[in-house]
Amino acid sequence: MEQQKEIRLGLLGMGTVGTGVVSLLHRNGELMQKRAGCTITVEKILVRDTSHPREIAYPADKFTSNPEDIIDHPEIDLVVELMGGIEPARQYMERALKAGKGVITANKDVIATHGEELLKLARENRCNIWFEGSVGGGIPLLRPLKNCLAANRVEKFLGIVNGTTNYILTRMEWEGISFEDALRDAQDLGFAESDPTNDVDGWDAAYKVVILGGLSFGTFVSMENIYMQGIRGISFRDLQYARELGYTIKLVAVGDTVEGRVSLRVHPVLLPLGHPLAAVYHEYNALFLEGDAVGEVMFYGKGAGAFPTASAVVGDVIEAACGKVHQIDSSTMDIQLSPRPVLPMGEMVSSFYLRLQAYDRPGVFAALASTFGEHQVSLDMIIQKRSDEGTAEIVLITHRVKEDNFWAALDKISGLPDISKVFSVFRVIQGGSQR
Amino acid sequence: MEQQKEIRLGLLGMGTVGTGVVSLLHRNGELMQKRAGCTITVEKILVRDTSHPREIAYPADKFTSNPEDIIDHPEIDLVVELMGGIEPARQYMERALKAGKGVITANKDVIATHGEELLKLARENRCNIWFEGSVGGGIPLLRPLKNCLAANRVEKFLGIVNGTTNYILTRMEWEGISFEDALRDAQDLGFAESDPTNDVDGWDAAYKVVILGGLSFGTFVSMENIYMQGIRGISFRDLQYARELGYTIKLVAVGDTVEGRVSLRVHPVLLPLGHPLAAVYHEYNALFLEGDAVGEVMFYGKGAGAFPTASAVVGDVIEAACGKVHQIDSSTMDIQLSPRPVLPMGEMVSSFYLRLQAYDRPGVFAALASTFGEHQVSLDMIIQKRSDEGTAEIVLITHRVKEDNFWAALDKISGLPDISKVFSVFRVIQGGSQR
Repeated sequence: MEQQKEIRLGLLGMGTVGTGVVSLLHRNGELMQKRAGCTITVEKILVRDTSHPREIAYPADKFTSNPEDIIDHPEIDLVVELMGGIEPARQYMERALKAGKGVITANKDVIATHGEELLKLARENRCNIWFEGSVGGGIPLLRPLKNCLAANRVEKFLGIVNGTTNYILTRMEWEGISFEDALRDAQDLGFAESDPTNDVDGWDAAYKVVILGGLSFGTFVSMENIYMQGIRGISFRDLQYARELGYTIKLVAVGDTVEGRVSLRVHPVLLPLGHPLAAVYHEYNALFLEGDAVGEVMFYGKGAGAFPTASAVVGDVIEAACGKVHQIDSSTMDIQLSPRPVLPMGEMVSSFYLRLQAYDRPGVFAALASTFGEHQVSLDMIIQKRSDEGTAEIVLITHRVKEDNFWAALDKISGLPDISKVFSVFRVIQGGSQR
Repeated sequence: MEQQKEIRLGLLGMGTVGTGVVSLLHRNGELMQKRAGCTITVEKILVRDTSHPREIAYPADKFTSNPEDIIDHPEIDLVVELMGGIEPARQYMERALKAGKGVITANKDVIATHGEELLKLARENRCNIWFEGSVGGGIPLLRPLKNCLAANRVEKFLGIVNGTTNYILTRMEWEGISFEDALRDAQDLGFAESDPTNDVDGWDAAYKVVILGGLSFGTFVSMENIYMQGIRGISFRDLQYARELGYTIKLVAVGDTVEGRVSLRVHPVLLPLGHPLAAVYHEYNALFLEGDAVGEVMFYGKGAGAFPTASAVVGDVIEAACGKVHQIDSSTMDIQLSPRPVLPMGEMVSSFYLRLQAYDRPGVFAALASTFGEHQVSLDMIIQKRSDEGTAEIVLITHRVKEDNFWAALDKISGLPDISKVFSVFRVIQGGSQR
């Protein structure tokens, strides 16, 4: 048995997750000490205002408003970054790594945009950076991908990684309420921010898809190469049609490799009701992936919240502390990254759901069908219902088609004199496991 | 960068999983080399008959029928045990650990019955034993439990860990066929063995529940303390009633802690249709657990088969090889075990489903209800349907009740003159996430 060692943490930030981390370190401290083989103590916490009253009963000298007190502290082994946002979080992490300290973070923005350089920096300084909490909150995702599935070539993943939008879609689907009402409720309950852009337009999921792509495909794709479509365009009517056709609608983060090229994207999809992800409701998250040896696996749980995220962060802290105790001076299992070409969205092959309104007169369908035909788009399912005032609502699902072809066809169709309105366009996922 | 090192494996056994492991090592060799930071080569394979023709094109001198050629081989770093069964697998692992070699296995029988002593032996010899493949095939379960969720106190888990029984129950439920017919199909498809006892009576799941208990609760409970009920008593009629009441029936492995005492058991349960495990069909496995920080998480995938299991085994090999390269001479995150008291099954509190046949005459219900009442059993749901020939079929679900009380009540009820037959008794799980 080694002498019981003490590992000292410096925390950057003391918001919701920070408070969760400190509470968890206290609550399960004895258990963690056994598991890590060392005691883990909080040495210093960076806060904006040291005089602000705190839930945590720490002596005043634990708090500092000077980041140097943590980054340059000779006895701090690990820096836990919980500030959020890119700067100054990124530069603090950089300086901590340069000082040879291990860094633990749940900051998806920084990892998605600067993960590659930080990993490189960690390697150069024989330390490491952990970020399990950056995707899927407390659900073990990144370490299983990196370690347990290391024998697999992962070619495909599909995830519900944004709890806010999943909560909104669940409320819409189950209660028939509008996007606006569901969003307002989510804001009242603290699930959505007052400016919901980051969630509902897909930004949050896009950061996460970059990180998942990094671990699955060994390449960090830059944010401008991530295709994004949010959930603002989804109406209860779409959810009803989807259900009628055997689907639900979810906002997903998708990763594919097609002939060596990588495609990462965030958009709503119609998902067959038998797909394991279709049963993921409310604020729950899940990642579904396919490895060439393991087949289909899914990880499911709460993707956000103080304690679920703290669970991931403190799990990383325990692993990092263990490494320090056993003097493992660099990452034993580095994430291997190399650049890979990106598949342009126009070259992707997708199946589409389309809802539009046409004037109820002869020849409409013929015009639609022939325009699709000219662009090599073939149709899989069609529903037509009579609407008021001489119009008809038409819902189509296409077979799989090159995206460029579909959009060219749709452009033409929107201009047809018989088509009065295109309401919504979403991609469709066929298959999934089990059935 | 370290000099590229070579890690040499000795394989004990070359059956289905062994062949999968060797194929996978070849197929994804380059990828693994990058991830492990070393080359991984197969040095020797123990087989019963070295003259037997093999799928794998290895030179004849790779094969041996003498276990000493592997266990005592000075250049073999890691021993991969894939023989199955308890002896001689256990003693080979013991000898390999004593020789300071790392051991990787998917052998649930050995780990469930001798895991504690092998882990101790590994620690004493500054090496380690990995067994991710022993539960849930390729689904990352044990390492996430041990590492990613290390900050959590896990108080409860519920798993579908036997693919054969889940396949049989799926066929019965979806197609209305009998247990016997579903079993025969499973045998024809190679999902069930000619003697199905190990699967259908719960033994396989019991070994796995012991291992899950070891990682979740830090204690290995001995097999004689595992309560077991198999699936032979389930009929399509039970599945129909369950569905009518909003449930499905699954064989589950359950772990609970109640006031510091541990309960591990394997039995069928009625599971609410909204529970994430209810959507796990066919040969798929899943583990659902609750941590005090992370909340509810679920892991899902294929629990058996050559490649899914090889995925777990080779994942372990990569981690072990990495450790060798970086000269991590003992387990960095030991499983901490300590004895804990076991909760006797009679003291458990459960809700029950009961299907029985009564003579269709006045006073039957009164007799039933008063017998239950005398034993503090209260009823939650009742269905009564008229049967042929003057009998009625009654289906009941009780509220939660101490098991001893329920069984005493049932004993008395079986003896009532109005009750002609007790068909089936299963436990019921209420709740689950999401709704």
